[in-house]
Amino acid sequence: MASSMPDDLEILETRLSRVDGQAGELIIGGYRLGDFAPKSTFEESAFLLWHGRLPDRMELEGLRTRLATARSLPAGTRALLETAASARLPVMDAVRLAADSLALSGDDEAPDVASAESLVARLPALVAGYWRLLKGQEPLMAPVELPHAAAYLYLLFGERPSESARRGLETYLNTVIDHGLNASTYAARVIASTRSDMVSCVVGALGALKGPLHGGAPGPAFEMVFDILERARVSGRPLETEAEAWVRQAVEAGGRIMGFGHRVYKVRDPRADVLGAAAEALYLGSRNEAFYRQAQTIEQVTLRVLEEMKPGRTLRTNVEFYTALLLHGVGLPAELFTPTFAVSRVAGWTAHILEQREHGRLIRPLERYVGETQRQWTPLEDRAR
Amino acid sequence: MASSMPDDLEILETRLSRVDGQAGELIIGGYRLGDFAPKSTFEESAFLLWHGRLPDRMELEGLRTRLATARSLPAGTRALLETAASARLPVMDAVRLAADSLALSGDDEAPDVASAESLVARLPALVAGYWRLLKGQEPLMAPVELPHAAAYLYLLFGERPSESARRGLETYLNTVIDHGLNASTYAARVIASTRSDMVSCVVGALGALKGPLHGGAPGPAFEMVFDILERARVSGRPLETEAEAWVRQAVEAGGRIMGFGHRVYKVRDPRADVLGAAAEALYLGSRNEAFYRQAQTIEQVTLRVLEEMKPGRTLRTNVEFYTALLLHGVGLPAELFTPTFAVSRVAGWTAHILEQREHGRLIRPLERYVGETQRQWTPLEDRAR
Repeated sequence: MASSMPDDLEILETRLSRVDGQAGELIIGGYRLGDFAPKSTFEESAFLLWHGRLPDRMELEGLRTRLATARSLPAGTRALLETAASARLPVMDAVRLAADSLALSGDDEAPDVASAESLVARLPALVAGYWRLLKGQEPLMAPVELPHAAAYLYLLFGERPSESARRGLETYLNTVIDHGLNASTYAARVIASTRSDMVSCVVGALGALKGPLHGGAPGPAFEMVFDILERARVSGRPLETEAEAWVRQAVEAGGRIMGFGHRVYKVRDPRADVLGAAAEALYLGSRNEAFYRQAQTIEQVTLRVLEEMKPGRTLRTNVEFYTALLLHGVGLPAELFTPTFAVSRVAGWTAHILEQREHGRLIRPLERYVGETQRQWTPLEDRAR
Repeated sequence: MASSMPDDLEILETRLSRVDGQAGELIIGGYRLGDFAPKSTFEESAFLLWHGRLPDRMELEGLRTRLATARSLPAGTRALLETAASARLPVMDAVRLAADSLALSGDDEAPDVASAESLVARLPALVAGYWRLLKGQEPLMAPVELPHAAAYLYLLFGERPSESARRGLETYLNTVIDHGLNASTYAARVIASTRSDMVSCVVGALGALKGPLHGGAPGPAFEMVFDILERARVSGRPLETEAEAWVRQAVEAGGRIMGFGHRVYKVRDPRADVLGAAAEALYLGSRNEAFYRQAQTIEQVTLRVLEEMKPGRTLRTNVEFYTALLLHGVGLPAELFTPTFAVSRVAGWTAHILEQREHGRLIRPLERYVGETQRQWTPLEDRAR
């Protein structure tokens, strides 16, 4: 590699979050994740990212009210979601398209905190509205007194969530609200750097989040758990035995075990710790405690087999596994894991868009041309294969 | 600046185009722009980017036929454009939304050449269909024997274009088909790097192209020309006098003169040369030759005044000025300049998406956290402003 930095190399600066893969630490808005995610409400977390500090009581009330009032499905967007549901469009495509159609309701404006609030308010309505339409149900309106996390669950299921479900979801939303310049956030910032509008930026981010190398993982991470449980049920053999056979087979077949290992965090993933604790709080003492114990058994067997078959790789349980465990406990089906990720991350995206807008320079990457340079034009009649 | 490269610094490689700002040179698919843009058909240019070589006669015929067959407006997309037209949505927002809705017709697939062809075929139908709906006219179908550039003009105006208009537009489409890792192309590649689908990537690119720091410029570049012509008509004073007064006033007010100067090309912009020659070929001997002469006069006065008021800055006429001149000559209104840019660039975007897909790694930029790291959580009741 060359020994000097290119002159035009630009390092993007952010004050929103710091991902330290070596130390296994994530800082969001100045707070260590573990100190922040279990305590904050989602509204406080979004305010923190947009304004760089926590809100006082009046500011928090104001934000709650504005989000609750804007938490609706505009008519043009609803009509489009109905068309999408008839076409059985996958949820993330429908959410991207619905977010794009917010331009029809005048949301295609220069990025500011008001347009950020509008997008954050509407994402739960888009996701839940589409989910209900897919099931042949009517989209709902949430009671305005419900805070954001509870309102999302209400919009999905039509009833006020239990306190433990609300807290479980809220801890998840806080945990994944921002994570440095990941691909969807970076896509939003590249678009924002042209001084485009908020909807264009968020739609780009949703398109990136959909990709299986990014937000696409939480679903598959848990298919293993269900698959192993089903095999044990059918065979009558102990869960440990089925889990061990499943993992050995997957590793021998050369497949990656979804839910274990992370590209950035080598030591530990701080989000996994927070989500693991939240899952434990949600399940213990609940009627689903037995399921939780089974999932833990499968996790332990997987870690043991991975350590034996890939020694020294330290493949730990990652955020996708605990996300699946927690969101399943909250009552969400796997198809909604990535869209629920978006319900949270849209707050981070909009904060990065505002930050990029302040910075104000067009993003250009380092590039190297590796093609030919001396070709001579050949007229069509002289071309041979 | 630090003296060593970060370990994880990734330089994106491309074989599609090389922008050499110092030499004032642009290479597309191995050919120097000036050798290629005036000779190629748009179909050949797109094939060159997708396949890395020019097509033979049979391949070219096959591509022409496939593009002509796919050059339609799906029913769901047309309905959405009608809604957008009722809301008087700006053209680029409507085009982005319409492209997004192609997912409804099953276009949300893994990027391959077929999905690239589909997007390229449909962009002219989206742009022209929306433009006609905005004017209260019916969208049209183009005769299948028309090649791409001619079909776009037919879809807009409902008649077969003259040979000189077709050639003028085609030279423009070839000239702007690709330009290294500009912001819209880079946005598409960041999204593609998550292994998302073709529609998601192109929609992100359209959102970026809309930004005034990127594709938003060709319209304003020519407002000056019309403004000066109108002033001269009203005042009866010589065009040179009005032009000089206009430019002096704009420079003294601290404004940038749109259409002059470029951030990357310091010496000359090779695209300006090609487009300038194409504009000359289009106008000379036509009934609009007088207008062309007037625009040239305004350009010459502007260059002289800029050299006098900003000596040494070498602010040359740029691609936006010649784009406006050429596209105006082809009969396009300024509102369609950026959408027509998209009609061309979508070929470059899709080629970059395919290239990124081959490369296959998630794009992560260099980032630096500049926020706080040691904040302690304060409960709501203890927060003071």
